[in-house]
Amino acid sequence: MEILAGLLLLLLLTRAFGEGAERLGQPAAVGELLAGIVIAAVLALGLDGAFLRDWLGESEALGFIAEIGMFFLALSAGVEMRPEEITSRAGRAFAVALGGALLPLLLGFLLAWSVLPEGEQKLAQAALVGVAMSITAIPVTSRVFAELGLLHGTVGRMVISAALFDDIIGLFLLALLIGLGRDGEAASLTGLGLIGLKVVVFFAITVGLGYHVYPRLRRHLHAMQIASLEFSILMSVALAYGLLAMALGMHWILGAFLAGLFFEPRRVGAKAYNEMRLLVGGLTEGFLAPLFFVHIGLQVDLTAISAVPGFIAALLAVAFLGKLLGAGVPARMLGLGMRDSAAVGVGMSARGAVELVVLNVALAGGILSVESQGQHAVVDNLFSALVIVAVVTTLLTPVLLRVLLRGPQLGDAKR
Amino acid sequence: MEILAGLLLLLLLTRAFGEGAERLGQPAAVGELLAGIVIAAVLALGLDGAFLRDWLGESEALGFIAEIGMFFLALSAGVEMRPEEITSRAGRAFAVALGGALLPLLLGFLLAWSVLPEGEQKLAQAALVGVAMSITAIPVTSRVFAELGLLHGTVGRMVISAALFDDIIGLFLLALLIGLGRDGEAASLTGLGLIGLKVVVFFAITVGLGYHVYPRLRRHLHAMQIASLEFSILMSVALAYGLLAMALGMHWILGAFLAGLFFEPRRVGAKAYNEMRLLVGGLTEGFLAPLFFVHIGLQVDLTAISAVPGFIAALLAVAFLGKLLGAGVPARMLGLGMRDSAAVGVGMSARGAVELVVLNVALAGGILSVESQGQHAVVDNLFSALVIVAVVTTLLTPVLLRVLLRGPQLGDAKR
Repeated sequence: MEILAGLLLLLLLTRAFGEGAERLGQPAAVGELLAGIVIAAVLALGLDGAFLRDWLGESEALGFIAEIGMFFLALSAGVEMRPEEITSRAGRAFAVALGGALLPLLLGFLLAWSVLPEGEQKLAQAALVGVAMSITAIPVTSRVFAELGLLHGTVGRMVISAALFDDIIGLFLLALLIGLGRDGEAASLTGLGLIGLKVVVFFAITVGLGYHVYPRLRRHLHAMQIASLEFSILMSVALAYGLLAMALGMHWILGAFLAGLFFEPRRVGAKAYNEMRLLVGGLTEGFLAPLFFVHIGLQVDLTAISAVPGFIAALLAVAFLGKLLGAGVPARMLGLGMRDSAAVGVGMSARGAVELVVLNVALAGGILSVESQGQHAVVDNLFSALVIVAVVTTLLTPVLLRVLLRGPQLGDAKR
Repeated sequence: MEILAGLLLLLLLTRAFGEGAERLGQPAAVGELLAGIVIAAVLALGLDGAFLRDWLGESEALGFIAEIGMFFLALSAGVEMRPEEITSRAGRAFAVALGGALLPLLLGFLLAWSVLPEGEQKLAQAALVGVAMSITAIPVTSRVFAELGLLHGTVGRMVISAALFDDIIGLFLLALLIGLGRDGEAASLTGLGLIGLKVVVFFAITVGLGYHVYPRLRRHLHAMQIASLEFSILMSVALAYGLLAMALGMHWILGAFLAGLFFEPRRVGAKAYNEMRLLVGGLTEGFLAPLFFVHIGLQVDLTAISAVPGFIAALLAVAFLGKLLGAGVPARMLGLGMRDSAAVGVGMSARGAVELVVLNVALAGGILSVESQGQHAVVDNLFSALVIVAVVTTLLTPVLLRVLLRGPQLGDAKR
């Protein structure tokens, strides 16, 4: 009974925040994350004996559902993406993506390296900060571009393609990171090389199979209830790819993501694709993702803002400048105007679900901790700081992008 | 990693059995249940150290997913049913349904009462057998009628409507049963009356709200991503109804079922209905239901057949004769021919998902046990015997129905 009541309460609160965010032109995920942060802050005021507080303290149900949510977030992100969209303009977008991923990665790593205390986890934590900075949230950006009618323009297509690359690069780096976190000796060059090799093997197998597995499976199977069979196939492939990822030392979300990535219209047929997109998308956005985001938000400690204000400010600077320069300069060099180049850089600044998945994985892997170790202010507040940066970048990106692309003279008249 | 491997293995095995069953003209659920029974029998041969055996022995993941599966089976059953189909020909079908539910209930109860040993649980267990006998599996029957092109004929519509009533009556009786199981004193007339009153209150509230809640919610909410919002609403209502059921001493599946029942096209619009039917149906049939059925099947001990052959044979007789006479006689009295009346009775003989849900609830509530108590052969094998009866009735119903409706002279030429 507690589980039903707890889930119902969280679902209603979270969705209310999510809907509120959408009406303010923000993605639902930001609202859902904020719901968790606000609930955590309210409960921290000392509402002893409050039902939700007791339930959250005792029940493992939310953590379990958040884990399932992570699986479906990765799968859903893969299903939503179309590999052909990358390959159609791969060259230019890849340069933008690489710059937009590597500069924030480097700046984030250097910033974290300079402030984190010496210790076993220093390398992994600094790398985590870099990875978190390198990611771009596609949904936020694509919504703003769509709203402005610019999704299929040069800037829009370049940003979406590059953001797609960046998420793949981020998940690739996560695979390396897990190797680092688990295996102290992986810090050696041989260790890094071995992990890199495994990652390459994983991508080679999944990409190779990806081009053939769905069409073949479909050819051999006929079913009366297409949707349920398609879902069984999609889940089986996602589980199998997840297993392969784990066998090679990576996180299973990479497998789920790639299983979704190759589930695309031209490979499985438009009907099956649209049905699975509806199923996986509805299940994820309507139930699992809100509970995942609120689960993350609940673990954020807002006192991080007063504990390490300088670090958070520096992270924000890295997050925005890293993307602005890292993605904007290659865009300018490829011939875009100043304003469009800036829009590319700004458009890639929002972090989102993938960053939070990375943080959650790091939390589970022991690279991060939400319990204060009392060692060092930055280490203690690293998780909260990174979530806060994700929220702020996601909140500001649409605002900045609208100002930049629409021009300040138009104001907000259209909305 | 074990969880992914275990789920993948079970999903593949179960779906293979399910697909095989469908090709033999049987419902997938029977194949999926048999997959569990076969796996359990093979593992019982003593494959020590086998991965699946170890995983099933240790992991709680399958039980947890089966529990979620039960929630979605109830929700999905509700979504698939249309209350208006009952009300359109309520009078005649209700008489058939009542006879088809009450006679097997009575016969099952009397049979169990006569063989079960004296004890605290005797009343609850005998009632459980009665409830299990009273249920009819709609999907099996409707598939056969559809295949024969008779779904919208007099017999077909009467059977489907009556079967629908029977499932509702079965879940209603389950509510009473849980009261009996939990509360020894509920066996008194006052106790029974109180439970009955609560059931009435529950139905009054959910049915009353059911007619208004979805249209109102829809009117007040607008969303860009309809499917995910619809799913949030459906889940919220299902959780809320489930909570209400529990607060009134019933099982939450009754709430999930009623939340689905009132989610129907004329109330929520055809588009939303079709999307949610696809989402809930695909998720349930493609992933959760197979794992629920295999979970049930894994707990079946086939030695029950040699331990209590007479009891199982008597249960089968009750299952078939109870429906044949209980539903067939009212149908004959309502003016149907002998053959059609017999078809109504036979058509309602298949048990299915709802019976298994009832058994699973009884298992969780302590009314049944899969661990041998060494007390009494019938008590020890009650769970396995009831599952076996569900499988046999479901397997035989389509065969008998085809022979009866198509006439033996046509044979199986059409299939």
